Amino acid sequence: MTPEEFRQLGHKLVDWVADYRAHIEDFPVMSQVAPGDIKSKLPKHPPERGESLDNALNEIAPLILPGITHWNHPSFFAYFPSNAMLPSVLGDLLCAGLGAQGMSWQTSPAATELEEVVMDWLRQMTGLSENFTGTIHDTASTATFCSLLCARERSTNYSQNRGGFHADAPFVVYCSEQAHSSVLKAAMLAGFGREHLRSIDTDENHALRLDLLEAAIKQDLERGLRPAALVASVGTTNSTAFDPVAGMAQLARKYQLWLHVDAAMAGVAMILPEYRALWEGVEAADSIVMNPHKWLGAGSDLSAYFVRDPQHLIRVMSTNPAYLQTGHDTEVKNFRDWGIPLGRRFRSLKLWFLIRDEGVEGIRARLRRDLDNARFFETLVDAAPDWEKLAPVQLQTICIRHKRAGMSEPELAVHNLRIATTLNSSGKAYLTPSVLKGKQILRVSIGCHTTERSHVEALWRELRAIVAL
Amino acid sequence: MTPEEFRQLGHKLVDWVADYRAHIEDFPVMSQVAPGDIKSKLPKHPPERGESLDNALNEIAPLILPGITHWNHPSFFAYFPSNAMLPSVLGDLLCAGLGAQGMSWQTSPAATELEEVVMDWLRQMTGLSENFTGTIHDTASTATFCSLLCARERSTNYSQNRGGFHADAPFVVYCSEQAHSSVLKAAMLAGFGREHLRSIDTDENHALRLDLLEAAIKQDLERGLRPAALVASVGTTNSTAFDPVAGMAQLARKYQLWLHVDAAMAGVAMILPEYRALWEGVEAADSIVMNPHKWLGAGSDLSAYFVRDPQHLIRVMSTNPAYLQTGHDTEVKNFRDWGIPLGRRFRSLKLWFLIRDEGVEGIRARLRRDLDNARFFETLVDAAPDWEKLAPVQLQTICIRHKRAGMSEPELAVHNLRIATTLNSSGKAYLTPSVLKGKQILRVSIGCHTTERSHVEALWRELRAIVAL
Repeated sequence: MTPEEFRQLGHKLVDWVADYRAHIEDFPVMSQVAPGDIKSKLPKHPPERGESLDNALNEIAPLILPGITHWNHPSFFAYFPSNAMLPSVLGDLLCAGLGAQGMSWQTSPAATELEEVVMDWLRQMTGLSENFTGTIHDTASTATFCSLLCARERSTNYSQNRGGFHADAPFVVYCSEQAHSSVLKAAMLAGFGREHLRSIDTDENHALRLDLLEAAIKQDLERGLRPAALVASVGTTNSTAFDPVAGMAQLARKYQLWLHVDAAMAGVAMILPEYRALWEGVEAADSIVMNPHKWLGAGSDLSAYFVRDPQHLIRVMSTNPAYLQTGHDTEVKNFRDWGIPLGRRFRSLKLWFLIRDEGVEGIRARLRRDLDNARFFETLVDAAPDWEKLAPVQLQTICIRHKRAGMSEPELAVHNLRIATTLNSSGKAYLTPSVLKGKQILRVSIGCHTTERSHVEALWRELRAIVAL
Repeated sequence: MTPEEFRQLGHKLVDWVADYRAHIEDFPVMSQVAPGDIKSKLPKHPPERGESLDNALNEIAPLILPGITHWNHPSFFAYFPSNAMLPSVLGDLLCAGLGAQGMSWQTSPAATELEEVVMDWLRQMTGLSENFTGTIHDTASTATFCSLLCARERSTNYSQNRGGFHADAPFVVYCSEQAHSSVLKAAMLAGFGREHLRSIDTDENHALRLDLLEAAIKQDLERGLRPAALVASVGTTNSTAFDPVAGMAQLARKYQLWLHVDAAMAGVAMILPEYRALWEGVEAADSIVMNPHKWLGAGSDLSAYFVRDPQHLIRVMSTNPAYLQTGHDTEVKNFRDWGIPLGRRFRSLKLWFLIRDEGVEGIRARLRRDLDNARFFETLVDAAPDWEKLAPVQLQTICIRHKRAGMSEPELAVHNLRIATTLNSSGKAYLTPSVLKGKQILRVSIGCHTTERSHVEALWRELRAIVAL
């Protein structure tokens, strides 16, 4: 493909994306295809001969689009907002067009230095002190895994540089029973073992109970185990509950534990000063992860990972073979040593574009709009006697279920799962059913960049229509 | 940003990328900026107010471009080809524009199913049997790490599900002393420990010596250690040497070891049937990684990870919380369980576009052109008495050094490092200095999609001009 052919096809594809976004409400939010539908329409074997990509562009609508669940649809209330806002789409296009590798400073200094600048912007925006330095990871799962690896190595005085992780006394990781599954995954992959992850019970707001945490730590110490790390959830997946970070920080200090703050969802809420009390104590963290590719809108994948001691991270993640050494290594950051992958895309471009386009002021206004919409939805639920709210609305997630007189818990579960299935299959809106402390819930996560009050109202109408059937 | 604003800016940016690629030869290959140059021109604080992204687009050339090392420049001979070919740029644009999350099948069935189809195309293209199933990882570093985690869990009967990795007898991983640094990193992060990675010496072609490998395994067994995994390098980083995969497979069988094939660089060469002898025995591998984002041109990041037993991978990587369960989980692939990250971009689009644009025939012709260029460069070196070739040219990498009568080894090292620095600083071409078995070498890696015979000739002229100074 020549640059001229690219120009022509690129214009066509930009138009396609613009039209897609302009008409996104015409599509069912959740894809309605059955397993195998998409695959069955694609050739089993690769084409021997090349062809004009015009053909492929023409096939996006009939072949690919039916299999898309539209995360940027205004009636997307599932999982979490994964906003790929249009400025970030431009940033991704530039990233791909430049095709630069940011593994080392020398392999594209701009990739390293813009990442430093933009991560520092985000640090300032969320009110973190200069004690933290940021870098971009793909996802919070990976960042949390890195944190537990760092905790493991700090606790074992860098066992990976010697005989590896096979201590005579096991190390223990603590989080709330509402913590994201990535914490369990990270603890298992880091070698701690499922038996050494303590899932601490939560209070009525679904936040970790400090008394039980300290009791568990003490018990483990008495049994000869070695507490190693705490993971605080700042915005749990189920209900956006906030663990008591300040209290956990005190325990981390007292027992010399690594403190990782998983703020994947709610970290960017701290761009609003009035929400910062929700993670009070965060300054004592050893590591923090938040996902600008969620609510903030920077487009997947862009997870912001902040650490207090980059030298420790580098010591855990760095190898330094001859073919990667360059003349400036002592003066610059080589981000290949700040995470697992060696190769790195120029991802900071999309966050740079996003922040410049909206400005911090514009971002604040958008987040506050979503929070207002969440409170509005909450009032609708509160006013409806047959609907129940199962968690306080602290941010933009509302956990509800519909009740009918005389229904047992198992019947309520079936009933609410059916509501979710009916709604999602209708294509009119999309939400995630989940289980919160044994109760089947419907999670309404508000925060798609295209969602306005009218879409929230429509969701409520749909839910009520389904239960009225 | 409205879709209409995006349309306008998108057209402008597509034009910018087309112009950049059309005039890429006007730029110095390696960025010529000093540490801090880029950062110093960027605002220290985020903008409070939003602005038109027109400003940002106008700033790419003056602010960002000087800090770009141009990996798609035809005189890029450094590291490895990291081709971001223009069809893949369109694929990335579509990926960003759709903004779909491919973590689970339901969250965008097309993302899962196109990935299945395109990975199967690649499997067929490289001559792998149907015993392998592919998925996309970000980088080979991550894929190799996953393999060693899988090896660890197979060897310990899933210790991560119990008390974790702290066996009373250590487990050992083997690779060649020419293996990529990511193998050491993976072994350390997986908890094996630096002391339990055996770097086996290589033969005169820089390939792992089977006799030494078996001797090391036997010695470890005698000492009471537990051999766990072999990593075969198919195309080493320094010299693109090929480890004896078939022999390693025999040892893997004999001693019940995990066999991971790191074909990050050379795997896609197997699209040429005449090169498949170089990884004979690969069918016995437990896992294989190759990087379509390198020579093949799919744009970073797109690493293809093939496994023999997906159920084992899933058992190691899967957690299954309520909020991720969907109605079709038993019938579909949920690629979140095939690697470390939960969130997943729709990366298969760019490989789909690339293969359709070039066709397998076109890809073969391009790879063969590069291989011809490498052989041509080799003949130039062979004919020059003051230049020395330090490794056989088995693929597209040529390892050379310049010799001057009477120079000691340390003087030769300084001399050749100076040649590299002079060349790279000139901006006329870019190659990687490295150290191969104690000797300072200049690595010439041929395979940028824009590189023609004339650029290889020009590189040779430059190198000779530098030594004639």
